[in-house]
Amino acid sequence: MTISRVAIIGLGLLGGSIGLAVKARGLAITTTGWDRDAQVRARAAERGLVGTVCERPEDAVAKADLVILCVPVGAMGDAARAIAPGLAPGTIISDVGSSKEAVATALADALPGACIIPAHPVAGTEQSGPDAGFATLFAGRWCIITPPEGCDPAALDALSGFWTALGSKVELMDAAHHDLVLAVTSHIPHLIAYTIVGTASDLEDVTQSEVIKYSAGGFRDFTRIAASDPVMWRDVFLSNKGAVLEMLGRFTEDLTAMQRAIRSADGDALFDLFTRTRAIRRQVIEQGQDDERPDFGREHGK
Amino acid sequence: MTISRVAIIGLGLLGGSIGLAVKARGLAITTTGWDRDAQVRARAAERGLVGTVCERPEDAVAKADLVILCVPVGAMGDAARAIAPGLAPGTIISDVGSSKEAVATALADALPGACIIPAHPVAGTEQSGPDAGFATLFAGRWCIITPPEGCDPAALDALSGFWTALGSKVELMDAAHHDLVLAVTSHIPHLIAYTIVGTASDLEDVTQSEVIKYSAGGFRDFTRIAASDPVMWRDVFLSNKGAVLEMLGRFTEDLTAMQRAIRSADGDALFDLFTRTRAIRRQVIEQGQDDERPDFGREHGK
Repeated sequence: MTISRVAIIGLGLLGGSIGLAVKARGLAITTTGWDRDAQVRARAAERGLVGTVCERPEDAVAKADLVILCVPVGAMGDAARAIAPGLAPGTIISDVGSSKEAVATALADALPGACIIPAHPVAGTEQSGPDAGFATLFAGRWCIITPPEGCDPAALDALSGFWTALGSKVELMDAAHHDLVLAVTSHIPHLIAYTIVGTASDLEDVTQSEVIKYSAGGFRDFTRIAASDPVMWRDVFLSNKGAVLEMLGRFTEDLTAMQRAIRSADGDALFDLFTRTRAIRRQVIEQGQDDERPDFGREHGK
Repeated sequence: MTISRVAIIGLGLLGGSIGLAVKARGLAITTTGWDRDAQVRARAAERGLVGTVCERPEDAVAKADLVILCVPVGAMGDAARAIAPGLAPGTIISDVGSSKEAVATALADALPGACIIPAHPVAGTEQSGPDAGFATLFAGRWCIITPPEGCDPAALDALSGFWTALGSKVELMDAAHHDLVLAVTSHIPHLIAYTIVGTASDLEDVTQSEVIKYSAGGFRDFTRIAASDPVMWRDVFLSNKGAVLEMLGRFTEDLTAMQRAIRSADGDALFDLFTRTRAIRRQVIEQGQDDERPDFGREHGK
């Protein structure tokens, strides 16, 4: 099974980056695309995010070997229904959503009998929209594929090969386990960042102007994550409620323990945690999952 | 009052960066330095962090117009007592500690009658030690000075001028208010980052290897902050207990509200917060407090 035509539904950061990566890597793949927003379609055509921007979803997916839905997870069902009239039999349907059990269910409901293989490239930035994509977004990043029971092995191989060709490393995982892992490595970090930025901007005894001026003490890092797309993230929390609440419970238990250590001036407990976490950072860098330069390579003194 | 001789006590990230900034900017200032660790003194001399690395603290501060204590806030009292035998009358004593009320008290106790003007440059990276410093660390960053009651205006002007000459913007603030502001913009963000990294590495149903592999979903940002110096941060939490606990209480209230919104599938509450926080990011960038490039300018695809 060879993938020679890929249709991208949703031409924002992820969809645009897939199209640009196919082009930049010179893959023998034709790309088509559609977005429900006419302005996004126009901008996508200008930037050449895909070979052909179609005006109708059914036209974009006609003759595609692989369709990738790059829309917020809450919009997957609608997107699937929109493309249904144009789908040829045997077309692989995949996606890039950050939660996988809910998406698998939504797609199976919308496209009964279709070859559905959900996936999640663990990559992104805080930006969104048709101007945000770039060709190297997936290079060196993991793409988690969550094949459902009874998935066609040839289709799975083809999808894995596609992501590998974009520079990603592929891992197969059960959808439920994916949702638990990503709750820790992505969803809770986003929830915490959104919350502390909200807390800081609501204070009465510290002004918003002070919060912004002195943000280089650590807070500014959180503002980057808290600038991520609101619709995408609303949908992530609603669609991965169980795992998020479970992991949030563990985090707040640990935070309460830290609170108690501070209140009781237990310096050893603080020092022990702060030493342990340093080792995790080293491993993240050793495994190529972050920039090794201090401060993420931020420019100082410009 | 002109500052022509500066003594730097503690030659890590902050102390080293001050020395390098004085040199790089070609200021007409002679620098001396001391660190209680002989290996750090040797490395500081190799890198030329200060003009002269002294073997004894009292020698480093002799004839200095300004002494800057660049040690963990819990070590300020000891450092002040160590330099006391060499201090000339009229020398300004300042510091770079992240909490200010506790430091002001510790310095006043250790050096009764001295001209003490605590300060806090809001700048740093996750690295520490004599190899971590660089000349542009303070450029464009704020330095908060917390002059005590009865502070000599000429000495305050001289200290402000020194930080301005290093490229910083100077703000004066009451020490107690400083501690509240920094609890929000720096101390709580660090506590949260340390805690979530600890939580993630302690899970049973998600392995540490998975946490590291999929850290690009947001978690890796927190690992950078959680790699900060353990002794420095232990001391910050112990010395700014009141403000940290106060702000932590507000954060956990807000986090509980988000938890409730997720549990009850209140998408509007999530969307409202996520939209509001995006505006804060824009202001942080507009005011030059962060790199405007997506993802902090991290390198993708290397």
